[in-house]
Amino acid sequence: MSPATELTEKPAVRLALLGCGTVGTEVVRLLHEQADDLTARIGAPLELVGVAVRRLGRERGDLPIDPALFTADALGLIKRDDVDIVIEVVGGIDTARTWLVEALHAGKSVVTANKALLAEDGGTLHDAAAQGGADLYYEAAVAGAIPLLRPLRESLHGDRVTAVTGIVNGTTNFILSSMASTGAGFNEALEEATELGYAEADPTADVEGFDAAAKAAILASLAFHTRVTAADVFREGMTGVTAGDMASAKEMGCTIKLLCIAQRGSGPDGDETVSVRVHPAMIPLTHPLAGVGDAFNAVFVEAEAAGPLMFYGRGAGGRPTASAVLGDIVAAARNKISGTRAPSESNYAKLRVRPIGESLTRYHISLDVAERPGVLATVAGVFAQHEVSIATVRQSGRADDAKLVIVTHSAPDAALAATVEALAGLDIVRSIASVLRVEGGAG
Amino acid sequence: MSPATELTEKPAVRLALLGCGTVGTEVVRLLHEQADDLTARIGAPLELVGVAVRRLGRERGDLPIDPALFTADALGLIKRDDVDIVIEVVGGIDTARTWLVEALHAGKSVVTANKALLAEDGGTLHDAAAQGGADLYYEAAVAGAIPLLRPLRESLHGDRVTAVTGIVNGTTNFILSSMASTGAGFNEALEEATELGYAEADPTADVEGFDAAAKAAILASLAFHTRVTAADVFREGMTGVTAGDMASAKEMGCTIKLLCIAQRGSGPDGDETVSVRVHPAMIPLTHPLAGVGDAFNAVFVEAEAAGPLMFYGRGAGGRPTASAVLGDIVAAARNKISGTRAPSESNYAKLRVRPIGESLTRYHISLDVAERPGVLATVAGVFAQHEVSIATVRQSGRADDAKLVIVTHSAPDAALAATVEALAGLDIVRSIASVLRVEGGAG
Repeated sequence: MSPATELTEKPAVRLALLGCGTVGTEVVRLLHEQADDLTARIGAPLELVGVAVRRLGRERGDLPIDPALFTADALGLIKRDDVDIVIEVVGGIDTARTWLVEALHAGKSVVTANKALLAEDGGTLHDAAAQGGADLYYEAAVAGAIPLLRPLRESLHGDRVTAVTGIVNGTTNFILSSMASTGAGFNEALEEATELGYAEADPTADVEGFDAAAKAAILASLAFHTRVTAADVFREGMTGVTAGDMASAKEMGCTIKLLCIAQRGSGPDGDETVSVRVHPAMIPLTHPLAGVGDAFNAVFVEAEAAGPLMFYGRGAGGRPTASAVLGDIVAAARNKISGTRAPSESNYAKLRVRPIGESLTRYHISLDVAERPGVLATVAGVFAQHEVSIATVRQSGRADDAKLVIVTHSAPDAALAATVEALAGLDIVRSIASVLRVEGGAG
Repeated sequence: MSPATELTEKPAVRLALLGCGTVGTEVVRLLHEQADDLTARIGAPLELVGVAVRRLGRERGDLPIDPALFTADALGLIKRDDVDIVIEVVGGIDTARTWLVEALHAGKSVVTANKALLAEDGGTLHDAAAQGGADLYYEAAVAGAIPLLRPLRESLHGDRVTAVTGIVNGTTNFILSSMASTGAGFNEALEEATELGYAEADPTADVEGFDAAAKAAILASLAFHTRVTAADVFREGMTGVTAGDMASAKEMGCTIKLLCIAQRGSGPDGDETVSVRVHPAMIPLTHPLAGVGDAFNAVFVEAEAAGPLMFYGRGAGGRPTASAVLGDIVAAARNKISGTRAPSESNYAKLRVRPIGESLTRYHISLDVAERPGVLATVAGVFAQHEVSIATVRQSGRADDAKLVIVTHSAPDAALAATVEALAGLDIVRSIASVLRVEGGAG
């Protein structure tokens, strides 16, 4: 007798799956492959009672599933009395919100990978979960297979998280890693990423940082017990990162990554605030995030007592994402059986999200300058006027090709931006070759 | 009104702390410093009702706690009716077992950092927890502050873990990192570690791998849903690793780490088994664990659907360990309030632990040989007799100083050990300079 069969007399926990694309098909496959283990771990079998898809006709011949389970009526499936848990892997905002609110209000637990919806309007989902007494799990929404949200939601709840810094978009990490290792420019590296299937035909959501910004909002909300939405996140894409920037980073013992950053700090009045932003940044090669290559994701968490922590793994792909979805299904199913609920949303802190201008950042600025006496004094004067302190300066080249590379200490981003603008207006500055933020103690 | 005060009307969850050493004092401090946040996150305040210590007289003047709470009667404290959760940070086996079984039988939840007890006899604790309907949490027992056990216990429960490879002892990692970076020998590096407070006066438990073996047993139990005890773990310390071994590893693009390894695999009859072992091993510098320096810990987990994952952070120290303890206290307190329990022990798989002889490993063997024709043929013949396949061979030196460095493909450890024994008996082999296992695709 297998361990599973001892337990199958308990009634099944019944699942409705919304979406059967890359992630959905892998969820179906894992439910099938791991059926015995899942039954043993949960204490009851899982039963898939319906799969909502957009078009019924599509060929899905190799899926281990009764074709009669497919339906085009997602809402009808959600409303069925015999559904305990609704799994949403469709994406999009308005329709998905309608579905999930419907499910949660009816007391049906929800497992979703929908980062866009959570970042735009997670509050509505959390409120619906509280009203319906249902679970809302979304481990797969950030950093795919990496168990990251559960540690933030639970393990670190006896500690005080001070910062979360992550590489949470595999496409852009592949592009930047490739630029770093081959010296290629952005377009060339993007082309390679597209050919290898790491970038979509329209890469906007990835390279412009929209995807990372949604994840930043979700991470900041969990880390700081505060509702943060995508609209609160400062976002700058990485299409402007050049081969020259990367070379310049290398000279400084750094590399460039597209980072999502959520930091606790003080506002101008000493009130506690959070800064949440996505932008490319130089980080030292000695930083644990610098070695995260290819399309891997990693999230670096700093907490007062725990110190630095890092979580690393595959951030995308059907099967890794499905692994995270399945973990959540197991948790929701266990709760159903024992009549309990997951810890509900923790948003008591209600910290103010400070705008990028108030956020403390550091800049790496590379200037093409006229080679004449007094240039450095003039440039340094501009920094001083804006109360920006300089950490390092390097001068190189001669005559028509002179260059100043300046790394600042940390200062309000608005002061740094104003400094750059003032520098651009100087006669002796021929052009501003590059401006990059610096993170992780580089410089 | 602070968020906490809204909630303080709920009755407090009452804690008994056993032990007030390095970790215990930090637990007391964090409970005090984070009190408002903890109340908000749990929905009720935490109240420390007693602290059991060995000697009452000791000066603890700076602890934010009423001195009347100290008691020398641990068992009396555990038995008090007003205790909801027992926190054990004393260590040791027999007395701690008595205490924790008493608490669990009485339905009191237990949070413990006691890896030795869990590895020796975790089954007894789990059984007591099941009988008493109480929670048993022990995140702090492995890899200190790193949220690792909760991901294994919950997040990865929809997946199938195939291997766990970890650096779980900070002392030995400090020593090996120092040997790698400075070229120092073991004794010199140990001395440095002792001076800096990374090694205890008697470093046996660390350098002989006992500490790592206890953690290996705990990790293997969780990863493979099988009770594994310290006695099941093959253990080889790292005192034999020489400066020469480290130099040899470097030449191969590798470094040496003391690893705890738990792998799923097949036994000789095709039955599913697990291999659990602790030993020094060469790993390639490109492996994510190779960059884990100083006294940091990291655990690399491979799962079928999730792929490779890594968890990194501080594995020891009062405050990091207390962070993990506090996370568990929050979870246990929430369960108390909502009248629920954590997922209970999952040991249904009951896989056989295969002995080291059956485990598949790879060896790096360095031989001092006579420089004469036919040496390689003779040596290769010995490998062939034992059905061990050679991956790479390098010959270097001349005459009295000739050397053969051989890396094998994977083979049963017993066959590899027998090969080394046979090589030692050959006339042409002057001495076996070093034998190290190889992990992580090196070679």
